[in-house]
Amino acid sequence: MTLRPAPAWRTTAWLNTPQPLSLERLRGKVILLHAFQMLCPGCVARGIPQAQRVAEVFAGAPLVVVGLHTVFEHHEAMKLESLRAFLHEYRVKFPVGVDAPGEAGDPIPQTMSAYAMRGTPTTVLIDAQGRLRRQIFGVHDDLWLGAELQSLLLEAHPGPAFDVRRSKTQVLPSAACDDSGCAAPSDAAPD
Amino acid sequence: MTLRPAPAWRTTAWLNTPQPLSLERLRGKVILLHAFQMLCPGCVARGIPQAQRVAEVFAGAPLVVVGLHTVFEHHEAMKLESLRAFLHEYRVKFPVGVDAPGEAGDPIPQTMSAYAMRGTPTTVLIDAQGRLRRQIFGVHDDLWLGAELQSLLLEAHPGPAFDVRRSKTQVLPSAACDDSGCAAPSDAAPD
Amino acid sequence: MTLRPAPAWRTTAWLNTPQPLSLERLRGKVILLHAFQMLCPGCVARGIPQAQRVAEVFAGAPLVVVGLHTVFEHHEAMKLESLRAFLHEYRVKFPVGVDAPGEAGDPIPQTMSAYAMRGTPTTVLIDAQGRLRRQIFGVHDDLWLGAELQSLLLEAHPGPAFDVRRSKTQVLPSAACDDSGCAAPSDAAPD
Amino acid sequence: MTLRPAPAWRTTAWLNTPQPLSLERLRGKVILLHAFQMLCPGCVARGIPQAQRVAEVFAGAPLVVVGLHTVFEHHEAMKLESLRAFLHEYRVKFPVGVDAPGEAGDPIPQTMSAYAMRGTPTTVLIDAQGRLRRQIFGVHDDLWLGAELQSLLLEAHPGPAFDVRRSKTQVLPSAACDDSGCAAPSDAAPD
Repeated sequence: MTLRPAPAWRTTAWLNTPQPLSLERLRGKVILLHAFQMLCPGCVARGIPQAQRVAEVFAGAPLVVVGLHTVFEHHEAMKLESLRAFLHEYRVKFPVGVDAPGEAGDPIPQTMSAYAMRGTPTTVLIDAQGRLRRQIFGVHDDLWLGAELQSLLLEAHPGPAFDVRRSKTQVLPSAACDDSGCAAPSDAAPD
Repeated sequence: MTLRPAPAWRTTAWLNTPQPLSLERLRGKVILLHAFQMLCPGCVARGIPQAQRVAEVFAGAPLVVVGLHTVFEHHEAMKLESLRAFLHEYRVKFPVGVDAPGEAGDPIPQTMSAYAMRGTPTTVLIDAQGRLRRQIFGVHDDLWLGAELQSLLLEAHPGPAFDVRRSKTQVLPSAACDDSGCAAPSDAAPD
Repeated sequence: MTLRPAPAWRTTAWLNTPQPLSLERLRGKVILLHAFQMLCPGCVARGIPQAQRVAEVFAGAPLVVVGLHTVFEHHEAMKLESLRAFLHEYRVKFPVGVDAPGEAGDPIPQTMSAYAMRGTPTTVLIDAQGRLRRQIFGVHDDLWLGAELQSLLLEAHPGPAFDVRRSKTQVLPSAACDDSGCAAPSDAAPD
Repeated sequence: MTLRPAPAWRTTAWLNTPQPLSLERLRGKVILLHAFQMLCPGCVARGIPQAQRVAEVFAGAPLVVVGLHTVFEHHEAMKLESLRAFLHEYRVKFPVGVDAPGEAGDPIPQTMSAYAMRGTPTTVLIDAQGRLRRQIFGVHDDLWLGAELQSLLLEAHPGPAFDVRRSKTQVLPSAACDDSGCAAPSDAAPD
């Protein structure tokens, strides 16, 4: 199987980064590209939070999370100033590029077209060599995503697996049950 | 770093399997051992559903999910007959061993003691060579777990990554937004 | 419309109460009777938590929440000792009666039969005069339940409405957004 | 106790209604006024969905749900065109007024100031006589809200309680357990 290079990103602005990002600049890193619209309910409720979790859990790995604002409807409602406020209020910290408007009146922006994305949210996984490996439209599960990202990381950096951060292990009480679990009477040993 | 072999399992009964399981029988497979109590709220609400998701998402991989019923309180309330009904009602399909009661009046059952588990739920990851690699008490996130499991699978079976099943991608409507996402007006291309 | 009296409760044991409860003893109070089985997933995940919220929110009102353990399957798995541990682990504080076993081999217990309940969870609302007013099988929403309970309270005690406790209003930060909301820059006035 | 009239609404535009709304026009109806900002995460995730549930559950009652867009930050990002798209994408059907900008450079809009709201979301309950009865900043529970609304409805329209619609009772399977509950073997009687 021959893998094709991911199409170049065509953007008009970038937020949350001092300089524009490109596939070339990020060569050597695994990329999770998250295409969204700020007024897409599924993106807000599920897609963006998942991308943020990835950014946190894989914080120390050679992996970057990049947002792409692919507006294909309500263009007037989602201009740069609104996106900037949106990212602030939702505490989105990863870099976000603004997809370039479609040419000749095409409502679909250019990068979205180049990837033939079907809508938002779309999650694209790009390997360390800049090749397109996965493209998923809609909501998918964390177990799958964690496994896929680890595969791409190990492919690029064979050897001991990157020690992914557990972001949500909760501290449990010392001798009782709560919503997280039940502690044994003698809290014998640390993990 | 030298990795120690996982302690042997000491059980009195098994459910959801025609014959008892052991580390030896499962050599060559990655094991997720999920220790729980049927009356532990955190196990019921979060731990067991996560173990079930792993069993589904990694269904085709050389990986097995094994439950261990480690009762350390209310022993009379969680006998075999109750556990059997619990597994039926909660549709738990993976094999479950019943941890052997502690000796000399110890409320902590034997396998739980051998692993020095601090309570329930506890998730133990054992590699294909039978070595203990991770042990987590409490609730943790799917991204981390997916990445860890993939690491152990790739370590045991180098080469093309196992193609983990996406269990929850939702089909989206063809030209509108719903809770999952927004479809582009011309549904350009399949994933 | 003539309202019929609620059928008498036929029970073999009570937990979380120093003495058995009956419709006669509770006359003058609105009753939410919550019929459940400890191994019914929908009861554990949704029905019982709702009944507990009612008990908290209406804590100062002439209203009582009463549980009824209506086992109609896996009888051996849900005996008194298991129920006692279940109530402890899930921190159920309201009184719970154990429905009397069906006669002549009937798997359906007696009170469940007398109310013609279709399964668990079933929520029954009984007015202050002991009359059956609502009976719902399955999961229903809090807005509806809050409104129904307030109706029965006001019917029994006309005049100023009982001041139902807000159980979950969250305190918000003083000048920022979080998952709960956004505070105005000058936190002008208390509620 | 003397109850004060709710302050008049000062707005610059209305959406989802053929003509502007006012307290005078709505006299005789109970009002739930939901103040929000379209970029307030707590409003989007919890406040607006609750207001929508109220509109559905109390659809046949003399009660109206009215939104108020009270922008006090990122004014450029939440103009009318963006709000219109937001209401469309989130399927908000109730009327929404746009709060008039604060005078003399005040970032707080006029109605928000008149009510001394502390931030968004804020839920205001106004009785059928136009009097302010409750004002809550932040997230609160449905049981409380259902009870409060029913009190105001019964106060305005004494007699048989309005029959609030159960919006979410789920149909259950006929002889098994699922996430909602467990059906009895013989599905004896309809509710």
